[in-house]
Amino acid sequence: MRKVAIIGVGMTRFGEHWERGFRNLVIEAGVKAVEDAHLQGNELSAGYVGTMASGSLIGQEHIGALLADYMGLNPIPITRVEGACASGSLALRQGFMAVASGMHDIVVVGGVEKMTDLGTEDVSDILGGAGDQEWELFLGATFPGLYALMARRHMHEYGTTEEMLASVAVKNHRNGSKNKYAQFQNEITMETAMNAKVVADPLKMFDCSPITDGAAAIILAPLDMASNYSKKPIEIVASAQASDTIALHSRESLTKLKATEIAVQKAYAQAGFAPKDIDVAEVHDCFTIAEIMAIEDLGFFKKGEGGKASLEGKTSLEGKSKGGIPINTSGGLKACGHPVGATGVKQAVEIAWQLRGEAEGGRQIKDANIGLSHNVGGSGATAVVHIYKKGY
Amino acid sequence: MRKVAIIGVGMTRFGEHWERGFRNLVIEAGVKAVEDAHLQGNELSAGYVGTMASGSLIGQEHIGALLADYMGLNPIPITRVEGACASGSLALRQGFMAVASGMHDIVVVGGVEKMTDLGTEDVSDILGGAGDQEWELFLGATFPGLYALMARRHMHEYGTTEEMLASVAVKNHRNGSKNKYAQFQNEITMETAMNAKVVADPLKMFDCSPITDGAAAIILAPLDMASNYSKKPIEIVASAQASDTIALHSRESLTKLKATEIAVQKAYAQAGFAPKDIDVAEVHDCFTIAEIMAIEDLGFFKKGEGGKASLEGKTSLEGKSKGGIPINTSGGLKACGHPVGATGVKQAVEIAWQLRGEAEGGRQIKDANIGLSHNVGGSGATAVVHIYKKGY
Repeated sequence: MRKVAIIGVGMTRFGEHWERGFRNLVIEAGVKAVEDAHLQGNELSAGYVGTMASGSLIGQEHIGALLADYMGLNPIPITRVEGACASGSLALRQGFMAVASGMHDIVVVGGVEKMTDLGTEDVSDILGGAGDQEWELFLGATFPGLYALMARRHMHEYGTTEEMLASVAVKNHRNGSKNKYAQFQNEITMETAMNAKVVADPLKMFDCSPITDGAAAIILAPLDMASNYSKKPIEIVASAQASDTIALHSRESLTKLKATEIAVQKAYAQAGFAPKDIDVAEVHDCFTIAEIMAIEDLGFFKKGEGGKASLEGKTSLEGKSKGGIPINTSGGLKACGHPVGATGVKQAVEIAWQLRGEAEGGRQIKDANIGLSHNVGGSGATAVVHIYKKGY
Repeated sequence: MRKVAIIGVGMTRFGEHWERGFRNLVIEAGVKAVEDAHLQGNELSAGYVGTMASGSLIGQEHIGALLADYMGLNPIPITRVEGACASGSLALRQGFMAVASGMHDIVVVGGVEKMTDLGTEDVSDILGGAGDQEWELFLGATFPGLYALMARRHMHEYGTTEEMLASVAVKNHRNGSKNKYAQFQNEITMETAMNAKVVADPLKMFDCSPITDGAAAIILAPLDMASNYSKKPIEIVASAQASDTIALHSRESLTKLKATEIAVQKAYAQAGFAPKDIDVAEVHDCFTIAEIMAIEDLGFFKKGEGGKASLEGKTSLEGKSKGGIPINTSGGLKACGHPVGATGVKQAVEIAWQLRGEAEGGRQIKDANIGLSHNVGGSGATAVVHIYKKGY
């Protein structure tokens, strides 16, 4: 299989784009990525796009063909993939496979979701379709409730506190304040986070990622062709995916995501890296407890110590100097926003910027050579991990 | 890239499965395919599933993880792909790529749709999301209307008649009557078809494919491992996909599907075959006019002569003796049924049975060595073509 590199990236600002539609968002991201890769457009020979729920959210399926049309890319094949909140990373993985296999050379990968065309209750129900519709959603368990169960159990088993949860939100808002693409570019205090309204006990408003519109895009090429397009190609050195039970009630543990553990072990083996080698990571913080579990399951901290590490600033931009690792420099799902299908692609965009040394606003990590992205579908039934290193 | 073969197939009966759910249907198809390939199940290392609109139809997204769970396949990665009515073929194409690339050896490909949990008007609206939601569906143009426009233009340009359209339905019902998996296993007369109620002039009831529940599955392996599992592996010698505009109003012609033309030309080039080499084909007859356009666009008949060829029986089971080719031996979407995401996979199942000499009920084509499947998304914005030959 061929080595694969990212040669261009682009994204819209994440946020509530009341005045814009699905098509418009994805075109902005796609065109930015094409320009970033110095392509004419006609070099593209295939595409993949991650979208979770466009059928329910905007009445539009057949997203691959729609984008081929509106990006002016007909007749090249563009295929939509869906894996709930991991849809974007699954699109990246299919694009990776298409290039690695030799089936295609230059491939565009997009992620997009337009979520604000409906009311929040409708959106919450639609997102519930990422879990077990028959055993969870139908009985009223939407996502804040499911992650609240995990948080409670993590607190019970490991002494994780509400302050620790809140510290994740404060850190991600601080990072988001430095990112001009973030939905929330304001810092918050511990006090604000701790005093916010309860959504699903113990999760309060700032423990939850928002509803967001947005799109992100990436251009992939074989590594040996990458320097024709980019001065700073970023090699994707691992792409791994694993599955777990769709419903929480079938899991052996509520305090870890087994699919994350399996996917990251595969990814480390593919890349020949260990957790200590990673300089910067974007992880799936749909809720603050999700970031805490992720940084444990990915091997950055021991199981049960993720909350304490967060509170101690070990996951901040300065985390490395404290024996930790910077997590979610973009602001994460929490502050950068979570347009579901776009999130996995945005994570890869942020890592590419970090490894190129182009993360703006004071959030650049010094000497970032190796990065990791971790994207979860639903309550952990899908996990996707990619590892990246400088290809220049 | 490695050569890829089908080593196992399975499907549910297509129909209105009031008493069964989505999960149940896909398990039946998957287990049958696993048994047909003489697998234990633990040899599977990845999967792809095609589903168009499970979010809107049954409130469930994240179908890949759901199936990994309910098929007992955790933690292997299963990924859902969506391309409207071509979702099944897109899943097959991703599976093909996964095996061809060397990334996976034994891969399961599924297609499934559960459509009868909602009323037909709701379903019609949901299916409209396969076209252009903003420019077509929102203004009331559902699929019978879109294909009626194509039919009228084909009649105007080429003298195609309502009798010619009806002859497609009569032939496909005759084939369906020989297929125990078909939704409609009854023959119809020309009189019945011609006197049926008008749905969207000139399309009458029997010109339209039905709303269907069902699932189909296929097991893929590298050709050089295939004989370990199957005495009659079927090699996939071409897999091609192309895109066209999502809305009809942007097309240069209403009487052909350009994406079909482009995809099949690529497929013939990959396989080294021409239309005359194909012994049997499953084509996308969501409406009778769609079959007539397909057999022209695929190169089996000259443009404008598909209707006449159908009326003359050149696409019947005995078509080859009349200078034609047997089309839709399964009964096609029209009579076998059209559970949207399952259709592309079912087409491959039928071709595998034909090339193995195992098509039952009197529909086996003699000396069928090379087969083709053609699956369309929406009104032609996606077209996918696969070509198959005996691998034994």
